[in-house]
Amino acid sequence: MIKQEIKDLFLKVKNQNPLVHHITNNVTINDCANATLAIGGSPVMATSIEEVADMVKLANALVINFGTIDDETYASMVRAGQAANKKGIPVIFDPVGVGATPFRTNRAKDFLEHVNVSIVRGNASEVFALIGGEASTRGVDSGTLSISVRDLAKNAAAKLQTIAVISGELDTISNGNQIVQIENGDILLTRITGTGCMTASLIACFSGVTEDWFSAAIAGMSVMSLAGERARKAIQDNEGIGTYRMKLMDEIFLMDNQIWAEGVRLL
Amino acid sequence: MIKQEIKDLFLKVKNQNPLVHHITNNVTINDCANATLAIGGSPVMATSIEEVADMVKLANALVINFGTIDDETYASMVRAGQAANKKGIPVIFDPVGVGATPFRTNRAKDFLEHVNVSIVRGNASEVFALIGGEASTRGVDSGTLSISVRDLAKNAAAKLQTIAVISGELDTISNGNQIVQIENGDILLTRITGTGCMTASLIACFSGVTEDWFSAAIAGMSVMSLAGERARKAIQDNEGIGTYRMKLMDEIFLMDNQIWAEGVRLL
Amino acid sequence: MIKQEIKDLFLKVKNQNPLVHHITNNVTINDCANATLAIGGSPVMATSIEEVADMVKLANALVINFGTIDDETYASMVRAGQAANKKGIPVIFDPVGVGATPFRTNRAKDFLEHVNVSIVRGNASEVFALIGGEASTRGVDSGTLSISVRDLAKNAAAKLQTIAVISGELDTISNGNQIVQIENGDILLTRITGTGCMTASLIACFSGVTEDWFSAAIAGMSVMSLAGERARKAIQDNEGIGTYRMKLMDEIFLMDNQIWAEGVRLL
Repeated sequence: MIKQEIKDLFLKVKNQNPLVHHITNNVTINDCANATLAIGGSPVMATSIEEVADMVKLANALVINFGTIDDETYASMVRAGQAANKKGIPVIFDPVGVGATPFRTNRAKDFLEHVNVSIVRGNASEVFALIGGEASTRGVDSGTLSISVRDLAKNAAAKLQTIAVISGELDTISNGNQIVQIENGDILLTRITGTGCMTASLIACFSGVTEDWFSAAIAGMSVMSLAGERARKAIQDNEGIGTYRMKLMDEIFLMDNQIWAEGVRLL
Repeated sequence: MIKQEIKDLFLKVKNQNPLVHHITNNVTINDCANATLAIGGSPVMATSIEEVADMVKLANALVINFGTIDDETYASMVRAGQAANKKGIPVIFDPVGVGATPFRTNRAKDFLEHVNVSIVRGNASEVFALIGGEASTRGVDSGTLSISVRDLAKNAAAKLQTIAVISGELDTISNGNQIVQIENGDILLTRITGTGCMTASLIACFSGVTEDWFSAAIAGMSVMSLAGERARKAIQDNEGIGTYRMKLMDEIFLMDNQIWAEGVRLL
Repeated sequence: MIKQEIKDLFLKVKNQNPLVHHITNNVTINDCANATLAIGGSPVMATSIEEVADMVKLANALVINFGTIDDETYASMVRAGQAANKKGIPVIFDPVGVGATPFRTNRAKDFLEHVNVSIVRGNASEVFALIGGEASTRGVDSGTLSISVRDLAKNAAAKLQTIAVISGELDTISNGNQIVQIENGDILLTRITGTGCMTASLIACFSGVTEDWFSAAIAGMSVMSLAGERARKAIQDNEGIGTYRMKLMDEIFLMDNQIWAEGVRLL
């Protein structure tokens, strides 16, 4: 049933061309813009506090990514998030590196107090830190936790009143009641920067064309994991992450409901 | 006649290696640097207000791009623009997203009051907003206008006392009297981020080696559209915008006066 | 002997996965993250002054790159550099564009007064400016100098009490006593942006797993030059810098101690 709903979302994204406003980091901002375009959305990346609320008025979804936050950007994130809440469009929050420094963890908690987040997407240690766990986030990598990823997703979703998307060997998505896991993926997705950030952009595109944000979250996450799997098959032994990055973007671009339905493995 | 002048410009760029100072956005800044290098220029991207005037002293052209402006960057843009005016080097202005928010539109108008812009490059709705039209700029996309693109280019050039370059299905360049249109291009140029921004960089490279900025504007715009057309032919059905981006950069790099003269279709 | 030590470093990087904290420019930040991942390190790019010292606590090496510095970023660089000194991890300093403007030159000198730099990596004119020479740095390009590159490397290393790495036709590395030169390379490395910045990231990865920073500097520099040479052989006549960039990242990813030992030409 979820599969049929998601299949329909591909067409909606291509037809409605959702505008996704990003306030994101400087490392992967270009990748996020191209991933948004690849799936059929339209990216905008304004960050000045003087205009973010106006830009949200035009947008269908908002992505907030903590990768390179500072005070100024953070203020814009809160302003944009509140404008998105007021308008009723989904806010996708990517708590990059939360748990690595007190600054990040505190800002993330502050953000959750000021903005209603629709979907949180992170790795396990980031999401664990977000709900108060003592995760061993090492820089922006995931660490090792004392909780199963299924429980973590469910607890985080319930506690934060949001949809939780946890990237990992199995990706796990929960709305607090249901749990869906995705078997697709490839280890090379962890060997290039930006795959997490781009996943948030993809989720935003899907959530910008439906009110069923749980399906949208599954759609965005699984497109990345399936595209990553397909990109791996498209490269040769004498190629590496340069070619892989390019093929990954190709596979996101080529993805449609048919390729998706045939390739995705939901648990 | 214009064609012969432009053919000569390719050699001049490769021989003189113009230094192009950019104050631009964080989304496509890497693409702009590589496009500048690809055509034979040399990019520099300093933004601190303490040094932009000194950097302009070394430069042959200045690109100002509004993609991710904030107050601090804007102040540097005005400082750099005025230094460029004083030195007599061309200022290429890319009013990204103007018309989308009052902040952007007001800043663009303010910029035009403080700096003499040599060449404006935008899509139709951005240029329309710049001359006071009520365009339906949606994020950073072009909308639908109540004026022909030919009239818009001519009016904008006359009103702003500049050369106007409008990217679109047909690209349109006017100096207020003459109008040239370019038939080359490919729809995929609109499906990756940065092609507009890179066009401004290319125009800057050409305008940095000649006083004939009208020809330089046609040269830069047509290199992008022709390279985009050639890149499309170089990709396969099972490839997408990842490969296309790479091939586009290849084609800019490979472009010379012969390939250009044989491929360009000026109207 | 140095060759054997460097061969061992490849394995150490892949096994220890050093965390490299970067405070770098907005132009090539994505390239630096991917180069770090390609060789086996883990990148983090936090810049807020409120967290850089905490991030350094998790890191194995720190890269400071002046590409797009402003006052705010500079303050974070000093804070992070001092935290790295306190912890005893290596600080790799890339003085991009120093010599081009008084602002850059003054900030670089100030930085050297406040932070003990372990390894300086630049082109000849940048390093010359750093030790008080009147180099003709043109934007961020190297100029022409009145000193041999060997003498420059040795003098800079001695004067700055650091390891000096000078990229060029021959790359030159000195610790003030010994000088090693690298014959590998390709002219296309100068036709894409970011190869210098990525070299600093590679050096940081190697220096994060050893106390022999001289070997680490040779390792990082030679990986870039050899990868650049190999990438050139991997592209066709009808390809350009788009494909070259991709292949360069592939070659960094594929590099191991065997490929390196067979291909590197140290003088």
